[in-house]
Amino acid sequence: MHTLDFRQITIVGTGLLGGSIGLALREAGFDGRIIGVARKQATRDAALSCHCVDEATGDLAAGVKGSDMIVLCAPVGTIPAMFEQLSTDAATDAVITDVGSTKRSIVAAAEKSLSNPGRFVGSHPMAGSESTGPASARADLFRDKPVIITPTPQTAAAALDRVTGLWKTLGMKIYRATAAEHDTMVAHISHLPHAMAVMLVLAAEQGGGLDVASTGFTDTTRIASGDGDLWADIFLDNAQPVVAALDEYIALTHSLRQIIAAGDRPRLLAMLHAAQGVRDRWVQQNAQGNHHAV
Amino acid sequence: MHTLDFRQITIVGTGLLGGSIGLALREAGFDGRIIGVARKQATRDAALSCHCVDEATGDLAAGVKGSDMIVLCAPVGTIPAMFEQLSTDAATDAVITDVGSTKRSIVAAAEKSLSNPGRFVGSHPMAGSESTGPASARADLFRDKPVIITPTPQTAAAALDRVTGLWKTLGMKIYRATAAEHDTMVAHISHLPHAMAVMLVLAAEQGGGLDVASTGFTDTTRIASGDGDLWADIFLDNAQPVVAALDEYIALTHSLRQIIAAGDRPRLLAMLHAAQGVRDRWVQQNAQGNHHAV
Repeated sequence: MHTLDFRQITIVGTGLLGGSIGLALREAGFDGRIIGVARKQATRDAALSCHCVDEATGDLAAGVKGSDMIVLCAPVGTIPAMFEQLSTDAATDAVITDVGSTKRSIVAAAEKSLSNPGRFVGSHPMAGSESTGPASARADLFRDKPVIITPTPQTAAAALDRVTGLWKTLGMKIYRATAAEHDTMVAHISHLPHAMAVMLVLAAEQGGGLDVASTGFTDTTRIASGDGDLWADIFLDNAQPVVAALDEYIALTHSLRQIIAAGDRPRLLAMLHAAQGVRDRWVQQNAQGNHHAV
Repeated sequence: MHTLDFRQITIVGTGLLGGSIGLALREAGFDGRIIGVARKQATRDAALSCHCVDEATGDLAAGVKGSDMIVLCAPVGTIPAMFEQLSTDAATDAVITDVGSTKRSIVAAAEKSLSNPGRFVGSHPMAGSESTGPASARADLFRDKPVIITPTPQTAAAALDRVTGLWKTLGMKIYRATAAEHDTMVAHISHLPHAMAVMLVLAAEQGGGLDVASTGFTDTTRIASGDGDLWADIFLDNAQPVVAALDEYIALTHSLRQIIAAGDRPRLLAMLHAAQGVRDRWVQQNAQGNHHAV
């Protein structure tokens, strides 16, 4: 296990991600205290019975008391409002990170509302599932997956070390980007695929044939079963990069449409082979471990 | 095992699908002869060494001699040209089917060029993989998967029974449709998802972020690793329904783009929840076995 320089961690939001952090920390040998904060009693009960956390509370102020590490695993829309309260209730040297799927708005809110904002480092672990809730939590959810951290010029070195240590302990591959770079990347590799899965399901329902849809359709649309409320927040929070990615995507789809309508086999083949090549190289690189990680 | 009323089967094209038919027939207890036809020596050798077929030949005429069942598993673009030769070389009472991903052009070619066309029944087993070749063949590839058969008013009852029996023996759920209905359905549930996976890979490469792409991206784009040449044939052969599906899809994507740009949370939520609901019901129906199968 990587050296962890904190003794008590508070996980705010003990769903799939928060719960999995607790389980993974325990599996990695962390022997400090793990406190979970969740609004709903049922979520707290489930988090306790899965052994994701040692204790659970519905009160943020009580939950962060005495913790030197705080991970915000709440929906992206609710995170910015937490920094003011954390300024009052968390220890001034507590390091704070989050797992939100967008970074510009969260990082900006931390720098605006958090006392001593150098102790905040934005994180986005690229791990998840279409399942939600602590009952779906898994100790290996993060292993070998990428995490993007988004330090700013204000970030304190010690905070960066602590957050990096957390994700390394969980087995993640660390990448660094600015919050803006992050948001553009995830618009393409995460938000656009989600939007496409949603559209494919709706198009299949309109066009008929769901009865005979098979493996390819199952895989392509899996993420469309994800939580609609969470995803509405993500799309709206990352609206500008998502709209830009959708525009690129519509343009690409329109060229494909023209190529097929014109029966232009050489250009169609070029497009299909390009995608096949890019994806095969990507799969191979992932299998070998990726050399661009920090 | 279902009763099979044929004693010798010729599989024309011993790749993933053809090879898997051979393996599945053996596993189901078929004790007749299985003959494979493949142009390339390497494919014939692989099909023999996987025990997909009992004998293999590069010559269609020699391969179909004495067979009372013939399954065409060649690329869709090459099937129409085979019917004339089969009229000369196959037994006049041999039943013929195929596994092509499009049906109108193949069914039309059979009715035009095949002597005694009532013995042909178009089939499309909805099973596959991004892998190709006999080495990827699996006896369970077809089990519990849908197959669409497309009989016409000319189809002989005995041919329909024989083809239905073949797919039932392989564990498939049988659906019937006209060739035109089939082509519209697959445009939505198979060709559109493939096109989208290809576009997503290209958009991700353009937009950056492939390094940090994770599970959701892997699943959504898996089929983009499929054989580009085969897919070019499929798109062009099914051009009209595919272009119509792409147009619907572009329109849907454009509305999503407008909704996100306008920050219209209620409409965005309605769209996301609709897709989530449709997909969840579909998954549940599939798990329970589907009641619309023949």
